[in-house]
This record gives sequence, structure tokens and C-alpha cells, in this order.
Amino acid sequence: MPETFAVAGAGLIGRAWAIVFARAGHRVRLWDGVPAALDAALPLLRANLDDLEAQGLIASAAEVVGRVETVASLGDALDGAAWMQECIAEQVEPKAALFAEADRLAGPTAILASSSSAIAASRFTEELPGRLRCLVAHPVNPPYLVPLVELCPSPWTDKAVVAKARTVMEAVGMVPVSVNREVEGFVLNRLQGALLAEAFKLVADGTISADDLDKTVKDGLGLRWSFMGPFETIDLNAPGGVADYCARYGPFYERLQAEQAPVLAWDADLVTRIEAERRKHLTADRLGERQVWRDRRLMALLRHKKDATDEYGG
Amino acid sequence: MPETFAVAGAGLIGRAWAIVFARAGHRVRLWDGVPAALDAALPLLRANLDDLEAQGLIASAAEVVGRVETVASLGDALDGAAWMQECIAEQVEPKAALFAEADRLAGPTAILASSSSAIAASRFTEELPGRLRCLVAHPVNPPYLVPLVELCPSPWTDKAVVAKARTVMEAVGMVPVSVNREVEGFVLNRLQGALLAEAFKLVADGTISADDLDKTVKDGLGLRWSFMGPFETIDLNAPGGVADYCARYGPFYERLQAEQAPVLAWDADLVTRIEAERRKHLTADRLGERQVWRDRRLMALLRHKKDATDEYGG
Repeated sequence: MPETFAVAGAGLIGRAWAIVFARAGHRVRLWDGVPAALDAALPLLRANLDDLEAQGLIASAAEVVGRVETVASLGDALDGAAWMQECIAEQVEPKAALFAEADRLAGPTAILASSSSAIAASRFTEELPGRLRCLVAHPVNPPYLVPLVELCPSPWTDKAVVAKARTVMEAVGMVPVSVNREVEGFVLNRLQGALLAEAFKLVADGTISADDLDKTVKDGLGLRWSFMGPFETIDLNAPGGVADYCARYGPFYERLQAEQAPVLAWDADLVTRIEAERRKHLTADRLGERQVWRDRRLMALLRHKKDATDEYGG
Repeated sequence: MPETFAVAGAGLIGRAWAIVFARAGHRVRLWDGVPAALDAALPLLRANLDDLEAQGLIASAAEVVGRVETVASLGDALDGAAWMQECIAEQVEPKAALFAEADRLAGPTAILASSSSAIAASRFTEELPGRLRCLVAHPVNPPYLVPLVELCPSPWTDKAVVAKARTVMEAVGMVPVSVNREVEGFVLNRLQGALLAEAFKLVADGTISADDLDKTVKDGLGLRWSFMGPFETIDLNAPGGVADYCARYGPFYERLQAEQAPVLAWDADLVTRIEAERRKHLTADRLGERQVWRDRRLMALLRHKKDATDEYGG
């Protein structure tokens, strides 16, 4: 049954969430405190949807955009909404103000979610009467191409709200995961950070070039990780599964951890070297066009994953 | 022009390398010190090739297997060979003995490469007259499905040999990278280890379940890494490229590094928890069948990557 989703903030992330909800057949009420942003939103959103239609990822851009309405106030957006997705500036005070207002205006069963990537829900919901229905639902950009969403409750978020949020996110085609503690970076960026830290070190000490390191991931390590996680990967890399793998290679990885422990600041010289190497492959004026390429490749990868899962199982 | 490749060791990795070389149109002479392993090799190899043919990744299994010959001695394998790929036990002494013999028997311009994943070339080539032509060429398993190969010279390997090895590996369809220093784990396993270390910590302290962590990678972080490396990924994640990204997020990643520094041993309790969670999704008796699924998915992913690169660029 179609529900109403309120999206607060009509920037890149807000528009992308509007696509997710509308694509799944729901009504979306999109609001932004800056009228000009709201005016620009539907044409921009339509352009993204036309692209998705051209790539065969949705049947009709017109139909999807028809479910999205821009509204003049947060109250209008929340009227009858089952879910609010906040997508405003990444600062505590504006988020706190918006959540206070939303908690006052939203219906009693509505879930209030923030797209925050760095600010934990506890920092802007503690004082609210409805703080138990507030949580972070952190997407990867853009959520209509990358299905993962990290659900990060505060210590006072109701467990039933987290469970319901998982159901809602699954119903709109996302892949929700539960981050049970408020840790900086949640999970995805912590994993990315761990790998990046080692990548910067290996380039810093001359072990490998940045370009060859990229190849090591895209033509090696990253292939399996696009359809299996790291635990399933090692589970299949020893005859007896993950415990067998840890028995064989645990001591090696423990030595590595010790070697990798020292913090390496990404200082100006190191960053300049990597920047210079990247600019040899892609001049700065072509970054935007390469982002379009990336999104095309993501779309093609999504179609591939769907086909491969249909054919071989997930 | 077809060359001759000697493959020493007819186990899983040796047979997989034989497929790589023969698929590229070269003659392969496959030798193993254990006659039974050699006898079994061609039928096993043929089964892999039939699979590749059925999946549309090679035109004719019969044609490829016709280029592979099993031979009774290392000398026969090396006769006229441009390249030796050693794929025997992961122990220093047998490798040292084999390289000593190969260095004596191989033609003067032949490159002698080891598939070693953990033993640096300097540990089994130092005393050899031809030590300058010896290096590690570490594949991912199986190399006919994962193109990356890490070229890891010893301190005395000739730079021209490394350069030629890159050319040879590219010519047989692999993606070589140069690992310029002998570091434990080379590059791929160091990157995997960095991410795994954080993954184990996040499960150990209850931040996330192993299953949700796998989803975080396969439905989020791992998607881009299957066609862009980590540096290209962050290069496209800030308006001004990688230097801009580091200016914005460097301090965050530096804090993360400090938090992630403590070594966490993968103790029995932790491993048992993760093993138990994996076995809920995949019982131990189905590990083998799931490995077949993984290889099917890898094959489908390779076809997809080729098509997507043809259509959108690499």
C-alpha cells in the first residue's frame, strides 16, 4: 500500500531519497527551507529519472516523478507521512531544530530518520519527547544506485523502531544494516578508512604506485566484495570455512595488524603525490564527466547483479 | 607469437596458470614432481576449461587444452621456455631447490617466477647465479578468473626483468602491478587484512553482526571497488578531487586510524561466534557448492566488466 514519505532538504541526497521512495510506488513530499532549492528540485530529479529510464532501471520516469510533490513547509511534508528522511546540512544545530519541529508536527507513528554521515542521532534528539522514534539512516550516494543504508539508532531509540525501519527500508528496495552502537564513521566509512589508511601507507613508503594500488582492488580484491562480503569471502577461502581460515591465517593477520598500527597522517607531500598521480590519469576539468561515467558503471553493475542473482542465486 | 611457458607444480594454482597461458595462445609444459598429480592434471584442467567454454569465456576448451602438455621432468618443461611459473608447496626449502635447478636448466633469457603468496623471492634466490631474473608473480585464486597478479621482485631482481614481466603478464591477459619492496602479504593481502581487522573488531564489540557487515560491503562499499580502486573512488567523491577529499576528510580518517590501532587477536570465542553466524547462512557440507557459485558469479562479473568497459570505458 502506498505510504507518504517526507523528505526534508532538496539537495543531492534529498532528491536521491525522493527517487528511492517514489520508485517503490510511494508518495513523496519534498520540502526545503530554501525556496530556490525547492524550485530547482523537480527538474533535477526528472533528469536523474530520465537517466534511470534510459538505462532500463525504471519503467517510466514520468510515472515516478508524478509521485513527488514539493511542499512549502515541513508541516505540509509531514502531514500523514509514515517516514521522514532528513537531508539538510551536516551540522548539529540545524538538525536539532529540524528534528524538534518534526517531532512536534509528525503523526505519532512516524519514524524520523536522518541522512547524517558523521553526526550520531544522540547529538540532536536527546531532548525530544519522541526521541525513541529518531535514528540515523545513512545512505551511500546516490541511494538509488547503491542499496546499502546504515541504520544507526541512538541509545534511546526504541528497538521496535529499528526493526520497523529495517522493514520499511527493505520494502523500498534498500539493503538496511543495523549499527548497534554510535561509533564515529558508522561501519561503512570505518571499513573504507581501514583500507585507505593502509593504501596511503603503501604509497607513502614507495611499496606501490597509487595507480597500481587501484588496480589491486578493481582487478583483484574488489571483485568478490561486489557480491560477497569479507566474511563470506574468507569462509570460502579455506576448506573448512571461516574458523579453518582463521586457524590458518589468523597469526599472519595479527602480525599485519601490529605492523599497520602506527597512525600515518595524510600530510601535504603525500597527498600532493597521490593527487599528481591521479591527475595524470584524469585532468581536473574531467572530474565531473568521470562521475557521470561512475554512475553509468554503477547502473550497469546493478543490472548485472540482478541478472546474476536471478541466474545463479545471491 | 606463441611462446612456451613452463609450469612447475600441477595442483590448483599450477593448473589455473596453465589455463591462463594456453588461453592466450601459448604452449604450456606442465610438470609435477608427483606423477599422480601430473596424471590427474589434464582431466581436471579440461573440466575447468569446459566450464569456461559453457560460460562463454573461451571459444573452445579442446583448442586450449591442446596447447598444454605434461612432461616428466623440470628440464623438459623448461626446454625453450620463455617463462617458468613455480606453483609448488609454500615452503622455503622446496622453492629454493626448485629455483636452483630451474636457474641451471632454463635458457638464459627465461624469467623465473614464483606463485608464492607469503615467501619473498629473496628467501629462495639469493645464492643463484641467475637471481636477477627471479621474482614472485603472486596470483589471486584462480588467476583465469581474477586478472590481478602482484609482481614482487627481490632486492636483486633486475628492473628490466620486472618491466619485461609486466609486458608478458599483460600479453596473457593479466593485470600486473609492481610491488617494489618485499613486504609481508605483498599489497592485496595487506589491504584485505586492514579491512578484515576492522571487520572483526566491529563484530567483536557488538557494533554489527557478521551478516550485516557482509552486506555493508557487497551492497555498498564493494560496488565501486569492483571497477575503480580506492584512490579513484575518493578522487570522485569531492568536487576538487583527491586532494580536496583529503582536506575535507583527512582529520576524520586520522582519528579513525588512532581508534583502530589496537591489535585485536582473533581469539577462539570471536572466531566461534563468526563461524556460527556463517553456518546459519551456509552449512559446512555446502561450502564446496558455494565455491562453485562464487566462481560462476566471478565469471558473470568478468563478462559484465568486459561489456561495461566496451560500452562506457574503463
